[in-house]
Amino acid sequence: MLTYWNNYPTIQNKLQTVCSLIEERLKVENPDIQDALIEMTQAGGKFLRPAFFFFFSDLGNPEKQDSDQLIKIAASLELLHMATLVHDDIIDDSPLRRGVSTIQSRFGKDIAVYTGDLLFTVFFDLIIETMNASEYMAVNALAMKQLLLGELNQMASRYNSKGSVENYLNNINGKTAELFSLACLEGAAFGQTSPEIATQASEIGRNIGMAFQIFDDILDYTADKKELKKPVLEDFVQGVYTLPLLLAKEAQPDVFSPYFEKGSQVTLAEAEEVMKLVIKHGGVKQAKKYAQRYTNDALESIDRLPKSDTRKALKKLTTQLLIRTY
Amino acid sequence: MLTYWNNYPTIQNKLQTVCSLIEERLKVENPDIQDALIEMTQAGGKFLRPAFFFFFSDLGNPEKQDSDQLIKIAASLELLHMATLVHDDIIDDSPLRRGVSTIQSRFGKDIAVYTGDLLFTVFFDLIIETMNASEYMAVNALAMKQLLLGELNQMASRYNSKGSVENYLNNINGKTAELFSLACLEGAAFGQTSPEIATQASEIGRNIGMAFQIFDDILDYTADKKELKKPVLEDFVQGVYTLPLLLAKEAQPDVFSPYFEKGSQVTLAEAEEVMKLVIKHGGVKQAKKYAQRYTNDALESIDRLPKSDTRKALKKLTTQLLIRTY
Repeated sequence: MLTYWNNYPTIQNKLQTVCSLIEERLKVENPDIQDALIEMTQAGGKFLRPAFFFFFSDLGNPEKQDSDQLIKIAASLELLHMATLVHDDIIDDSPLRRGVSTIQSRFGKDIAVYTGDLLFTVFFDLIIETMNASEYMAVNALAMKQLLLGELNQMASRYNSKGSVENYLNNINGKTAELFSLACLEGAAFGQTSPEIATQASEIGRNIGMAFQIFDDILDYTADKKELKKPVLEDFVQGVYTLPLLLAKEAQPDVFSPYFEKGSQVTLAEAEEVMKLVIKHGGVKQAKKYAQRYTNDALESIDRLPKSDTRKALKKLTTQLLIRTY
Repeated sequence: MLTYWNNYPTIQNKLQTVCSLIEERLKVENPDIQDALIEMTQAGGKFLRPAFFFFFSDLGNPEKQDSDQLIKIAASLELLHMATLVHDDIIDDSPLRRGVSTIQSRFGKDIAVYTGDLLFTVFFDLIIETMNASEYMAVNALAMKQLLLGELNQMASRYNSKGSVENYLNNINGKTAELFSLACLEGAAFGQTSPEIATQASEIGRNIGMAFQIFDDILDYTADKKELKKPVLEDFVQGVYTLPLLLAKEAQPDVFSPYFEKGSQVTLAEAEEVMKLVIKHGGVKQAKKYAQRYTNDALESIDRLPKSDTRKALKKLTTQLLIRTY
């Protein structure tokens, strides 16, 4: 999906190098697993996290930058993301990810557990190579922890009929926004911008990540299966209650409580009813307002960055991300 | 199980501190998961890896040591071990570990995946706090990778009727011996011994780890269920072919090939037949010779360490480990 970056040839070029580096680092003894990992990398998403990293590093002074270091850090961000995806797919029992069979559907859960773990170690290899001795080691470890705590809390609160908007926002802050924040922060820091820009970058990344995840959760209610390439409604059936539902439930508790009471006994047909009710009672509309608010916060902060072509591109990209249909 | 160290009060004392530190670091938002993790720590094994770490650090100069650092590194070793145990239990579908319900049997595989991941991050937190900027960061990342590759290769070669002794030794070198080697190496290094002793320590640890794992695999064939606290024979039914079987098969291929051909269709009754055949054809006896060889190598290297009470204790412990019945 690096075609997504056709209008940003410099970024696209760097992302291609990141992709090659990841493939190189995923060499393992077992050829099947290696192939599956490389296929996963190539079928990959948009490499959004490395891309944001490079946008922010572009705000710095190129003469002070170590381009090899930047490529490796960008790769570490994608690997951390991939590791959690491999583990996510175990939990969701997902047959497909980005149109390609998941590691767990090909090799079983057991191999997927260790494959995800292995990706974590490749992530650590890269950050040790590039930032050992710096405070960013601890920043990375903390980000990884927040990410996992977000996932863990989401899991632990499944089928929780008392799930709140606040709890949801907390969880996505950990599981998604943290890594976007890290990507932007590290881009600014290792791109040798200023400490002020690094702080702004971290905040911008967090807002983008929040908006991104909310938007993703909205898609479960609006996109059709073919377009999304993953089964819609799976979150609800699995007891993961996302923002549109939580907001609709807040507005009309009596309408939704019968469905919540069913817990894991809920049927797919009932899930479809819930989907329609969420839309009817404004859940999607309200959730879009949340996404919009985080996007606006991000855009306003971007406006406060030093004026440059990069700032312009960043603004365009951020706006574009929130009108995506896939 | 820290009672195992009753005859080594100084070590026991340090291990108690390690145990408390681990509990402190396992504070997570979800009280159920936190309780389960703390229970796992307390029900814990013998804390063998931290113990070997301390034995080797005791060979150094106490005046040059940072005792807080040593406790943290010892804890990191146990946490890395615990992380792989939590993920192992997912794969083995184990209901019990050390007599306590496993994370996966209590909370499901999904939570167990993230809980194991979380333990990896706590491991990284500790090594970043204690050895950031040192070459030992990369040593740890590599050890973790070898450990996972060992597990992954073992998984990927399940039900492989061509499984060889060499392949088995490779896998246990990664999945078990690597961490014992790291424990001894880090004990020597952070205990401020000499580079020569550190090299010896690493080798001793590796030999102890090899012997330890072989011995563990022998127990599947000899111990009774109650004593072991885990279902015997599970390895065979799950297609993990360990040393006693591989050696018996090498000696009598015709006897064993019918069972191997059944692959995952093998029944528990057939597994019991295999167990008897392995013993009958000398598999256990031959495997014990392998364990003995690694133990002897370890003991000979220990003899080359500087003469001290610690050396004496280390020798005693190593010998004792290989006559354990649990």
